[in-house]
Amino acid sequence: MNPFDYDRTQPQQFGGVLPAARSFDESQAVILPVPFDRTTSYGQGTKHGPRELLLASAQVELWDEEMGVDVHPHGMFTAPELDLSGRGLDDAINEIGRVTGGILDAGKFLITLGGEHSITSPIVEAVASRHKGVTVLQIDAHADLRDSYLEEPHSHACAMRRTLAHASLVQVGIRNVSEEEAKAIPGLPTTIFYDWNMRDDPKWIDKAVAALSDTVYITIDLDGLEPGLMPAVGTPEPGGLSWRELTTLLRRTFESRRVVACDVVELCPIPGFASPNFVAARLVYKLLTYKFGSTKPGRA
Amino acid sequence: MNPFDYDRTQPQQFGGVLPAARSFDESQAVILPVPFDRTTSYGQGTKHGPRELLLASAQVELWDEEMGVDVHPHGMFTAPELDLSGRGLDDAINEIGRVTGGILDAGKFLITLGGEHSITSPIVEAVASRHKGVTVLQIDAHADLRDSYLEEPHSHACAMRRTLAHASLVQVGIRNVSEEEAKAIPGLPTTIFYDWNMRDDPKWIDKAVAALSDTVYITIDLDGLEPGLMPAVGTPEPGGLSWRELTTLLRRTFESRRVVACDVVELCPIPGFASPNFVAARLVYKLLTYKFGSTKPGRA
Amino acid sequence: MNPFDYDRTQPQQFGGVLPAARSFDESQAVILPVPFDRTTSYGQGTKHGPRELLLASAQVELWDEEMGVDVHPHGMFTAPELDLSGRGLDDAINEIGRVTGGILDAGKFLITLGGEHSITSPIVEAVASRHKGVTVLQIDAHADLRDSYLEEPHSHACAMRRTLAHASLVQVGIRNVSEEEAKAIPGLPTTIFYDWNMRDDPKWIDKAVAALSDTVYITIDLDGLEPGLMPAVGTPEPGGLSWRELTTLLRRTFESRRVVACDVVELCPIPGFASPNFVAARLVYKLLTYKFGSTKPGRA
Amino acid sequence: MNPFDYDRTQPQQFGGVLPAARSFDESQAVILPVPFDRTTSYGQGTKHGPRELLLASAQVELWDEEMGVDVHPHGMFTAPELDLSGRGLDDAINEIGRVTGGILDAGKFLITLGGEHSITSPIVEAVASRHKGVTVLQIDAHADLRDSYLEEPHSHACAMRRTLAHASLVQVGIRNVSEEEAKAIPGLPTTIFYDWNMRDDPKWIDKAVAALSDTVYITIDLDGLEPGLMPAVGTPEPGGLSWRELTTLLRRTFESRRVVACDVVELCPIPGFASPNFVAARLVYKLLTYKFGSTKPGRA
Amino acid sequence: MNPFDYDRTQPQQFGGVLPAARSFDESQAVILPVPFDRTTSYGQGTKHGPRELLLASAQVELWDEEMGVDVHPHGMFTAPELDLSGRGLDDAINEIGRVTGGILDAGKFLITLGGEHSITSPIVEAVASRHKGVTVLQIDAHADLRDSYLEEPHSHACAMRRTLAHASLVQVGIRNVSEEEAKAIPGLPTTIFYDWNMRDDPKWIDKAVAALSDTVYITIDLDGLEPGLMPAVGTPEPGGLSWRELTTLLRRTFESRRVVACDVVELCPIPGFASPNFVAARLVYKLLTYKFGSTKPGRA
Amino acid sequence: MNPFDYDRTQPQQFGGVLPAARSFDESQAVILPVPFDRTTSYGQGTKHGPRELLLASAQVELWDEEMGVDVHPHGMFTAPELDLSGRGLDDAINEIGRVTGGILDAGKFLITLGGEHSITSPIVEAVASRHKGVTVLQIDAHADLRDSYLEEPHSHACAMRRTLAHASLVQVGIRNVSEEEAKAIPGLPTTIFYDWNMRDDPKWIDKAVAALSDTVYITIDLDGLEPGLMPAVGTPEPGGLSWRELTTLLRRTFESRRVVACDVVELCPIPGFASPNFVAARLVYKLLTYKFGSTKPGRA
Repeated sequence: MNPFDYDRTQPQQFGGVLPAARSFDESQAVILPVPFDRTTSYGQGTKHGPRELLLASAQVELWDEEMGVDVHPHGMFTAPELDLSGRGLDDAINEIGRVTGGILDAGKFLITLGGEHSITSPIVEAVASRHKGVTVLQIDAHADLRDSYLEEPHSHACAMRRTLAHASLVQVGIRNVSEEEAKAIPGLPTTIFYDWNMRDDPKWIDKAVAALSDTVYITIDLDGLEPGLMPAVGTPEPGGLSWRELTTLLRRTFESRRVVACDVVELCPIPGFASPNFVAARLVYKLLTYKFGSTKPGRA
Repeated sequence: MNPFDYDRTQPQQFGGVLPAARSFDESQAVILPVPFDRTTSYGQGTKHGPRELLLASAQVELWDEEMGVDVHPHGMFTAPELDLSGRGLDDAINEIGRVTGGILDAGKFLITLGGEHSITSPIVEAVASRHKGVTVLQIDAHADLRDSYLEEPHSHACAMRRTLAHASLVQVGIRNVSEEEAKAIPGLPTTIFYDWNMRDDPKWIDKAVAALSDTVYITIDLDGLEPGLMPAVGTPEPGGLSWRELTTLLRRTFESRRVVACDVVELCPIPGFASPNFVAARLVYKLLTYKFGSTKPGRA
Repeated sequence: MNPFDYDRTQPQQFGGVLPAARSFDESQAVILPVPFDRTTSYGQGTKHGPRELLLASAQVELWDEEMGVDVHPHGMFTAPELDLSGRGLDDAINEIGRVTGGILDAGKFLITLGGEHSITSPIVEAVASRHKGVTVLQIDAHADLRDSYLEEPHSHACAMRRTLAHASLVQVGIRNVSEEEAKAIPGLPTTIFYDWNMRDDPKWIDKAVAALSDTVYITIDLDGLEPGLMPAVGTPEPGGLSWRELTTLLRRTFESRRVVACDVVELCPIPGFASPNFVAARLVYKLLTYKFGSTKPGRA
Repeated sequence: MNPFDYDRTQPQQFGGVLPAARSFDESQAVILPVPFDRTTSYGQGTKHGPRELLLASAQVELWDEEMGVDVHPHGMFTAPELDLSGRGLDDAINEIGRVTGGILDAGKFLITLGGEHSITSPIVEAVASRHKGVTVLQIDAHADLRDSYLEEPHSHACAMRRTLAHASLVQVGIRNVSEEEAKAIPGLPTTIFYDWNMRDDPKWIDKAVAALSDTVYITIDLDGLEPGLMPAVGTPEPGGLSWRELTTLLRRTFESRRVVACDVVELCPIPGFASPNFVAARLVYKLLTYKFGSTKPGRA
Repeated sequence: MNPFDYDRTQPQQFGGVLPAARSFDESQAVILPVPFDRTTSYGQGTKHGPRELLLASAQVELWDEEMGVDVHPHGMFTAPELDLSGRGLDDAINEIGRVTGGILDAGKFLITLGGEHSITSPIVEAVASRHKGVTVLQIDAHADLRDSYLEEPHSHACAMRRTLAHASLVQVGIRNVSEEEAKAIPGLPTTIFYDWNMRDDPKWIDKAVAALSDTVYITIDLDGLEPGLMPAVGTPEPGGLSWRELTTLLRRTFESRRVVACDVVELCPIPGFASPNFVAARLVYKLLTYKFGSTKPGRA
Repeated sequence: MNPFDYDRTQPQQFGGVLPAARSFDESQAVILPVPFDRTTSYGQGTKHGPRELLLASAQVELWDEEMGVDVHPHGMFTAPELDLSGRGLDDAINEIGRVTGGILDAGKFLITLGGEHSITSPIVEAVASRHKGVTVLQIDAHADLRDSYLEEPHSHACAMRRTLAHASLVQVGIRNVSEEEAKAIPGLPTTIFYDWNMRDDPKWIDKAVAALSDTVYITIDLDGLEPGLMPAVGTPEPGGLSWRELTTLLRRTFESRRVVACDVVELCPIPGFASPNFVAARLVYKLLTYKFGSTKPGRA
């Protein structure tokens, strides 16, 4: 008799115990937790973000009432947490690129869970080396376009400046830009929708989608959302996207573009305050639903 | 001399020390706390909800600036907390029905404070056995239409399916439905306004009210509100009604229908975070104001 | 039918729902909550102390394994919270004296729950005017013997200086004394057991009890306990009595002296951290057990 | 060698370590923390508000993307915290007037950080004695027009009634008015925009600005904002202004009127929950940016 | 290439990433998390206990300075969490017995992590059916000898009464006994060391060990410890064992008896307060160290 | 008129507003906050430690009842926080040495407030280069004698190994040692008093003091205290010194040795839980009192 033949909870698996569990090989989507937290300048720590998001994810309803579908049989495999605690920053960045590249090579739709925003650039580099003409759609309060921050070019405050080496950007919800960034922006391959005036044009979502190329990577810094809905971030900024705005933008992007990978970063859980963790978990499942909601499950 | 002839706080009385306190017999409204919390699947517990709501209620302004009236002289009597801790689930459900039936028989406008959502079905049964043709207006993130959940037909996840045995439903703000529920809904006597698209029709509030019969019971699961405003619930869901949407819907319902009883459920207080408790207390007083705001105080 | 004929929780009643509940007249002990909090210089507020202590008290075991007795049939009646929020300080002090005097006149053993320590002096005045030769046993980190503090003679920092007008003191666990107090102490009718050296004498408990007259009032400022056990106070001080020291001192006092009334003050609940509230509730029940544990229940 | 010749953090300085630090004399703006908290009826205390706001302010981006400017070289000097703990209420009110008057006499743009709302009336008195025809623009959930509260005419609940002695009012976002206030309002020199219906007129912001005279004082009680965005206040009220509404109203006011001073009051920090502190800090910087954003730095 | 060939954190593994990781077959010890929480009457929930204990365990130093040894190469395998959420109480109790029996049959030293204390009786039953003459050493504040509690014989308040069917008891640190229990105790096969007087005998630890038979099961309810050290329990009780007392008692027991299995139960984590979780994790490792510290690693 | 001629709180000054404030030149003691937090492996952050300790210090009583003296007129000047956020680790270590050396050169008694333990070695280096034959008295749960940790020789886990290059050690309360450290210890110039057995010798405090040379530096890692009293540390360990043990050890050391400087490190404040901050602040004042309590104030 196998003593472990019993019902078990699934720690650190997106969705918890799934009716239709799938192996890595069987899964079309892979969720990779990267609790990397080194340069964040303030707060309680994004390194606890993936763990709390996955814990909350067990409460997410698998059926999506908007799309009328349950996509989890497509397979959403949660990989083990990538542990970068013993590495220097450059080494960590390289390792993120190597690991995410391997998952992309296996043909998976990758959603990486941060951790801090500096994980995005090696992933985009891995994506761009496998897909031509990638645009990055970034939802964020901060442009993150500094050339360096506190002498560190891989700070989260520089995340998107590093990313520009590999892809052009469409940045939405921006409401925090330094003077250095403001002066550099006209010369950079980025289209910015500033939070303070983007809604003056009722077509702003259409225009944001139109600015994207055919192949898209999506990076969602959770501080792009309204801080009332999402206070659990390192540097909250008033303003920001509502849930309806965010989901509409994402749905239209998935409907008209080929999204090849995503990340959701900067969740800094607040002890005793679970609501933001649920919101982040639901957002990850929305990404999966928009990606696979109109197709039948199949091999990755 | 009576040693208790002194100023006192009013523990567990809605509104605290009231200028015009009323006895049960003198009161038109009765507030019944039912801190029932047995099947909630996650979180800190709705059993603390009524106590914290009542504590916050002492800060609610009695004058309502929208209606231009102070309704508390109509009498709002807070009954003692119904203690169900020593009972099995079926027994508890029956006791809720018996007690609320007694209050309704006394001709009172009843507002029950949960506790979990499973308290609603016995109250609706009590209401429906005393009033013909009752419709239930439900504000909620979850349809709660499962036939059973974890083998328990009286789980909070089944609250409204049980209620359907006694009344038809109008459900507003719904953004969490299981596949089982989605498949059952077309055959059930319910009209659902899904959160993701209900605002596409600017007349959605009119249509929701129009779907109600003359006699109405209102059940408000606090997770129907936006989680930014109301994070203190067991399973928060992004999306949801704003305060303005909720109060507009309620006001129109009270203006054009006969609302006979209400409940406000699923408040799960977050230690050290008082704002949601205030919001819930103000909501209860809004219900009372809309009910009695256009009439003079009188005997129940 | 009476609609309130149902099981109910007992809000704000010491011990919650008691097997042998007693009316005021039938009770030998009365517990009076006085959430008075005006001059405390720092922290989250002792005004929430009585409410949280009473909430926790429902978990206290009625049988005391040390004394081998359940004293609650002697009757322990919880009076309504004394509300002093609309009064000036002098007026509040007078009202405390008037109300506690009335309870003492009814022949009750009174335990007052603070609130801040300034409530003690009017109670001691009320006690001393009814009993000759009262000594006050004070467990506290602070001597509270300032003549005035921030120009206010009824500040909690002066609580025991005011009390000296009515009774002499035995002060135990003291580890915070101002220079002003240190210089005044030699001329004041007080015997102090300083925390830093009182244990150098293994007979210190005997000596503390020996310093008491026949009739004793006990005031326990919870910061007299070790802050590890009791962190929920306004100004914690390292050092202090252990639970074993405190209960031994109290038991010996009750065994050899006539204790006529007590107070337990300065509980400042920490949201989300229940342990200190339990400790305070158990302490109140220890006082009752030591008082009544060797006699049969009877009329007050 | 000077041993303090080292990099230092700037405690209690708005913006932390500033690239272009300015002395009092060199600064056009002065930020005065007044952690005055005496009569607030509920909660954890506004006295911690200024400290937490200043702590968060070190994370505020100095460049404002809306105005396209960094105004901090105009000079924003943070004065030491005004300590009123040893004073009676009338004395404290007088001292606030004296100190703020001195800063105004030095020709500074003053932003006072509360602390409770009762600090506003002496500042407005100081402003009105130096500028003719001042109107006060108040963003608030509460009218604060009681003539007295708990027998105290300087309670925060009476803050604006006291202010009326010195200036007329335009009150925005009001959603809590007592019956006494409601009856008094028609006879008072105030224009109220009630939260429940002010948005029924799409020109409400224009009308609010039009109601102001040429010279304006702005007082922002943070509970005027939505409680989802700003839960860290003593008495949260559902409803309220969004960030976009507030910033639009403020920008239009600064563009068309001469704003001479402001205050931001009633921040009651929630331990472990930093988002509201960031929002408040950003709001203070928005005030500075709207004030100085269209002019060159120069002498105050 | 295997995309998962990377450094990883070990979620829910005692000790985290271990230098000498061992499979189940290679391990002499097995740690089984059972987050069972159904009947606990108050608090935030023991169901989060195993997860937080395991999270903290990654910080425990593997070398034990008292024993001068690192026992982890003996193998300490953490089994998946046993999920009992879909079962009735009797069914859950049976399943605990079945699963733990299987692990015992494999010859492992089992440490079960609760969850509530009701998990102990089926484990003891499983142990007693495999080993003759087992005594249970219980460290606890509560005797847990009620025959039933709220009509439920498997309540945590009855945990040890159920256990008595399978083994005799030695109970240490007891300071909460109901009258029903007090009267039943003389007729029950248990030796109780009451907290209030056990230290009056300097040989109390020797006597507790002497009362044990050769084969011992140890159950540690964390509320047996001092609440200052261990506040994170459902019903804290002042008094209790110090760390030194507990470790001395455990060491002597392991040195002179054959301990076959243990459990550590009733950890109710307090959000944001990590210290108790560390203490519990260190305690589990102390059990392993005392068990294996004097032998060489080898096959289970 | 000077507009800043008003009563003010003293942010970030030990003791707050002092009756006898002293300038740097007039002060015999200097308190230097160093909120350095880079390599701590877990928790909420020691970088907030100095700020919260200083905030709590305003409540510390200046008169010490043990020594019968108020030492603050000797002058205790709080230097500005040393900001190391823009520096690499080696650079930061050097800067700490340079700054503390400057203060020592001015003849001051230096108390440095951490921040993490890695700040100790450069201070000891600065001390040892100015005083011959220094011994370091370390109170700590962890030996911190690793040669490197995660490839970083200046990790807090290596703090005392680095220190050994400059002085020999006496380590007290140690209860966490890695195997690497255990094997290295016999060859290192350190005397260790392990927590698990040091109290077996009633003369352990005498022996610890006897092991010190004439000139002593004291480093107190707050996790050396019992975690019940001091839970606000990064890696709490059960066991540890009581307040009485710690103060007795310190008093004897100051009485018989020449203590030239101290540090108090690793305070990781827990939001909403103030007691540990008070304990740490009182400890700092105990160091000052033991240092100066037997001498008259005079020039540094």
